[in-house]
Amino acid sequence: MDFNSFLTSLGTSFAIFVVLMLLFTWLSRKQGNAVVYYPNRILKGMDPWEERRSGERNPVAWIQEAISSSEQDVVTMSGVDTAVYFVFLGTAVGILVLASLVLLPLLLPVAASDPGESGTNSNGAFNELDRLAMGHVQQRSQRLWAFVFATYWVSIVTYYLLWNAYKHVSDLRAAALVAPVVRPQQFAVVVRDIPTPPEGQSRKEQVDTFFREIYPDTFYKSLVVTNNKQVDKIWQEIEGYRKKLSHAEAVYVKSKTGSNPAGTRPTCRTGFLGLLGDKVDTIDYYHEKINELIPKLKAEQKVTLREKQQSSALIFFSSRLTAASAAQNLHSRMVDTWSVVDAPEPCQIIWSNLPKNFYERHIRQYVVYFIVFLTIVFYMIPIGFVSAFTTLSNLMKLLPFIKPIVKEKVLRTVLEAYLPQLALIIFLALLPKFLFFLSVTEGIFSESHAIRAASGKYFYFSVLNVFIGVTVGGTLFSTFKTIEKDPNIIVPLLANSLPGNATFFLTYVALKFFVGYGLELSRMVPLIIYHLKRKYVCKTEAELKEAWAPGDLGYGTRIPADMLILTIVLCYSVIAPVIIPFGVVYFGLGWLVLRNQALKVLVPSYESYGNFWPHIYTRIMAALILFQLTMFGYFGVKQFYYTAILVPLPILSLIFAYICKQRFYQFFHDTALEVVRHEVKEIPNMEHVYRSFLPPSLATEKPDDDQFDDAASQGSKSGSAV
Amino acid sequence: MDFNSFLTSLGTSFAIFVVLMLLFTWLSRKQGNAVVYYPNRILKGMDPWEERRSGERNPVAWIQEAISSSEQDVVTMSGVDTAVYFVFLGTAVGILVLASLVLLPLLLPVAASDPGESGTNSNGAFNELDRLAMGHVQQRSQRLWAFVFATYWVSIVTYYLLWNAYKHVSDLRAAALVAPVVRPQQFAVVVRDIPTPPEGQSRKEQVDTFFREIYPDTFYKSLVVTNNKQVDKIWQEIEGYRKKLSHAEAVYVKSKTGSNPAGTRPTCRTGFLGLLGDKVDTIDYYHEKINELIPKLKAEQKVTLREKQQSSALIFFSSRLTAASAAQNLHSRMVDTWSVVDAPEPCQIIWSNLPKNFYERHIRQYVVYFIVFLTIVFYMIPIGFVSAFTTLSNLMKLLPFIKPIVKEKVLRTVLEAYLPQLALIIFLALLPKFLFFLSVTEGIFSESHAIRAASGKYFYFSVLNVFIGVTVGGTLFSTFKTIEKDPNIIVPLLANSLPGNATFFLTYVALKFFVGYGLELSRMVPLIIYHLKRKYVCKTEAELKEAWAPGDLGYGTRIPADMLILTIVLCYSVIAPVIIPFGVVYFGLGWLVLRNQALKVLVPSYESYGNFWPHIYTRIMAALILFQLTMFGYFGVKQFYYTAILVPLPILSLIFAYICKQRFYQFFHDTALEVVRHEVKEIPNMEHVYRSFLPPSLATEKPDDDQFDDAASQGSKSGSAV
Repeated sequence: MDFNSFLTSLGTSFAIFVVLMLLFTWLSRKQGNAVVYYPNRILKGMDPWEERRSGERNPVAWIQEAISSSEQDVVTMSGVDTAVYFVFLGTAVGILVLASLVLLPLLLPVAASDPGESGTNSNGAFNELDRLAMGHVQQRSQRLWAFVFATYWVSIVTYYLLWNAYKHVSDLRAAALVAPVVRPQQFAVVVRDIPTPPEGQSRKEQVDTFFREIYPDTFYKSLVVTNNKQVDKIWQEIEGYRKKLSHAEAVYVKSKTGSNPAGTRPTCRTGFLGLLGDKVDTIDYYHEKINELIPKLKAEQKVTLREKQQSSALIFFSSRLTAASAAQNLHSRMVDTWSVVDAPEPCQIIWSNLPKNFYERHIRQYVVYFIVFLTIVFYMIPIGFVSAFTTLSNLMKLLPFIKPIVKEKVLRTVLEAYLPQLALIIFLALLPKFLFFLSVTEGIFSESHAIRAASGKYFYFSVLNVFIGVTVGGTLFSTFKTIEKDPNIIVPLLANSLPGNATFFLTYVALKFFVGYGLELSRMVPLIIYHLKRKYVCKTEAELKEAWAPGDLGYGTRIPADMLILTIVLCYSVIAPVIIPFGVVYFGLGWLVLRNQALKVLVPSYESYGNFWPHIYTRIMAALILFQLTMFGYFGVKQFYYTAILVPLPILSLIFAYICKQRFYQFFHDTALEVVRHEVKEIPNMEHVYRSFLPPSLATEKPDDDQFDDAASQGSKSGSAV
Repeated sequence: MDFNSFLTSLGTSFAIFVVLMLLFTWLSRKQGNAVVYYPNRILKGMDPWEERRSGERNPVAWIQEAISSSEQDVVTMSGVDTAVYFVFLGTAVGILVLASLVLLPLLLPVAASDPGESGTNSNGAFNELDRLAMGHVQQRSQRLWAFVFATYWVSIVTYYLLWNAYKHVSDLRAAALVAPVVRPQQFAVVVRDIPTPPEGQSRKEQVDTFFREIYPDTFYKSLVVTNNKQVDKIWQEIEGYRKKLSHAEAVYVKSKTGSNPAGTRPTCRTGFLGLLGDKVDTIDYYHEKINELIPKLKAEQKVTLREKQQSSALIFFSSRLTAASAAQNLHSRMVDTWSVVDAPEPCQIIWSNLPKNFYERHIRQYVVYFIVFLTIVFYMIPIGFVSAFTTLSNLMKLLPFIKPIVKEKVLRTVLEAYLPQLALIIFLALLPKFLFFLSVTEGIFSESHAIRAASGKYFYFSVLNVFIGVTVGGTLFSTFKTIEKDPNIIVPLLANSLPGNATFFLTYVALKFFVGYGLELSRMVPLIIYHLKRKYVCKTEAELKEAWAPGDLGYGTRIPADMLILTIVLCYSVIAPVIIPFGVVYFGLGWLVLRNQALKVLVPSYESYGNFWPHIYTRIMAALILFQLTMFGYFGVKQFYYTAILVPLPILSLIFAYICKQRFYQFFHDTALEVVRHEVKEIPNMEHVYRSFLPPSLATEKPDDDQFDDAASQGSKSGSAV
């Protein structure tokens, strides 16, 4: 790719971003769009238009608001997890800004003023960007010392900011946990691997006896996990009919207002997909169906609670100190029985994974790791092909009929700029669901944990495949024969092919941030979907609410994507320092746009109190070590005599990572007692806490089993939001 | 070494053993020797001669008693640690007996009936033992399948017995911990890394506030660790003078009985070593000295308690459940503050290590590991030289003047049999103290833990240096040039030199068990020392008691020595199956002799409830994997086509080790709550528990500080035996 197509790409992306931002400014002012642009505020019962008074006509008002918002605002509006995500974005910006302050004024003149050498450039010809890169410096030149210094500088800046960030996140987590409000999950623990109960004792008695003996003062109640497959099915069926019923009722009410004051009762067919079968009155039909199912649900609930108890339970304590302590204690001599862990939020529990036993979990885990390994390795091949084939010259050879299109100068430039990146982005969009599915299959019982696991897999996938895959893949075609002869060549090969791919990644990053964040901010897709649905589908309030439900930040894919960018920028930071400003814009723009989204739009679907941070931290360290190794390899390629001076860096990184982990990590795994030692303000309503963990399919109907021995409020799911 | 010298060595060793056993039978009957042969019984207030009635004249009565004693007897007389050690001995015997049942009838005929091949034998000539070994089987022979089967058999037998043993030890530990008796250490935890107290708060207030808030119901008291260097010094000085005083008084009393009814008051000189200076009356002099020091001690105690408080403390709880739970909990967000762990027995605490902070401990640990690594690597060189030089033919070349001695046939045979082994044994005797010192330097604060750490280091030292060192060392001299050319040769080299050294190790094992256990049983050395001391040194009861104090099993050196034997026997079990009976005799005889010692002689100096087991287990697994790798290498040397069939074995071992660790290990690290959930029978006397942890130098005098705010009993150290 030459410099022109790079500039075109950059310009187009920027133009798209500006258009989208203007669209956002215009659309977000319309009253009817409030639910699309301010759903978080609306759901929290706030006035969506509050800020209007100050900057009515100002198209950058949202930027001012984002900047002036405090971390506490973010925690209040969107939870600790979101605040931690901003700590990550801030740290990334910090690292890159501090790096650029030294690297840009130092390295660019050093590289540009070098007499230069030909041949190392992968295209065989110089362009303006390549002149500013380390590849332009002559081999064995003393100027390389500046690059050595830069490598150290980037590393030290990263250590410093990461240490502060880890400390800050730990404070955020502690502040959230110490707050004296009743959170059901702080009063509960999950116990798995309960052994078979002794003869003549029910599972519930067994569990109660065990925990009451150890925690006589604070044990409140237990909730044995049941196999809810059957009852869930019936419950969902009823819920489905209820929705259809209220839809039909809304249609009926609407039909009354016209010339027909009696209205038309809606009808439907009972057969396949509502297309075949008898025509019946919809409202009556669904009423009938629901009335049929309710006794069935009640019977199934009874059977489930009595006979489908499984080897897992939730235990409730009247003190959160005890719950925190219990989750850290070894209860049974054998680790494969009575394993007790912290309970996640009720809404996060993946019930079907709770009863999976100790050995099954371990075996599943290793099988999943193996599958992920295969996925990573075997996707490498297609990605290599994609990046090799989607250069225009290759495409023309393969598909001669596109030649006339390519001849158009403008079109050609655009295509050349976007083709490889588009292939890549589409490709990556297919994977996350699969990885999440795999993580759930491992037996993880908390949604946020499963998302973290999937995100980790996705990160290693993207670094290995996109970064190393594309880098090496581009050069692979020409040098495949060489590798066959000597596999040791791979490291210098990687280092060699890095500079040639710098512009590819520059375009990739620019496309990501301008178009990606533009779409994010303008919410074009949700807006269109919402308006279409409102017009043609939704009849009831509930349906409408569902149509504009904003969703959450989507850490599972967002963080690996960010991490990939950070990895790319870090690895190129010294080799081609011009990439750093792009990284700064990516993370800075991301910070701005997402701050707006977090405050006004997105609603987190769970809260893990910053448990995502250790994962992010590990990946940043992995990226840093990859950067250091790459630099080591690249200095080797440059035949720099003192390359060995870089050897301490990866070792230093490992020591730093170890110390950080030692010092901070355990608090993200166990709840420190000093944090929860203060009791909550009000005496917790334990029945409420207990009910918030009841699965909805078991909690909706009037309780009449021994598990429901008192008739407290029915506010099952709603309690989870406390 | 030829077969003759081997038989001579065996015969001599056996003769020594028989003589020592007869000596034991004869000496142990004498009334005056009871304190040497039955100290454990005497200290426990039992009749040492109890068994006399049944088998008065029977020289093997002790064997009958050892065999008929139950595990419960061992636990009662000598504690759980000793019982666990017998589980280890029993497991070793079990593994070797089960292995020999298949290996001896299978492999010996297979090897002996083989036409054989010359050249693989390191001596170049066959002897009777070599004919029975795998080395005698021809290369590529189908007979090697029998040896493959044998390798699998040994591995499977080891897995099976190890699993049972681990389970059994876990039961033993649980039974000991569950017992409803008051053990001070079960009611206490150690807290280290206490942060600097806030302004205006003493360390003690800080600690009390912190723990009282978290454990309001069960917190009893805290004991802040102080810097006792100064006060210990004064206290020891006083104790020394007291001993000397009572000695002088005893001498004075004795002198009265003679012709001189007034007696002669003993005198001494006050100067250097009692040789120079003024001559004074000893009794008066020491009285004076003690009276001088007591106010000094009191003053120093006050200063110590007030001003020398350090960043560590012991916390006492009125419930052992709370103590067990507290030791497993994370108390502070930062792992480097308020780290809480189980308290060891009071007598085990290494006080000076308690205040060492988190980072110091880690750094010390890595420095120590590095020193150990250096020790292991650089001792390799001298050991190699020793084993190469101490063959007689080498000695004759180097020291021509010993030729006439060597010419004597008998002497020559004896020398040839013992020289290399003696060098080895003496060499190994120097090391354990150094390794224990290193382990204490690491910052470990419990004696039993430090001994375990030293024992682990000693094991790796002995396996690497003695086993691999001697094996390879013998061959190294001739093949040093080859290794220089190609370091990859080391593995086949090791496998190649194994059979040639089999007889060396046979003699080594035989010497170890016959002479070692003979000396152990007959207690010749303690007997002679005791009688000498009684006659010439001891005047008072206390001095006499000190003279016959029996000591403990000495796990620090005993277990690594046993593990070395087990490693050797396992590694040779298939290559030269004749070694197995020797192993059986070693562990069987050890079991018998030590059973006698445990029941009657030795007194454990601490109790760690079987915490030694995971270490033993890990080392047995390491030995097994070394055996499997050796076999893999040796089959390769034999050019067996299907050598790859052994690849699953080490993998299987790793999986087995992992599962075992997962299932059993955590209980040896943390106390399971189900084990301590039953409260102790009597209400514990908490003041008593607290005082048992007071260092003697602070507890002897009348308390008058705020740490001693009530005047309970002064039974400080004696309480630790509860």
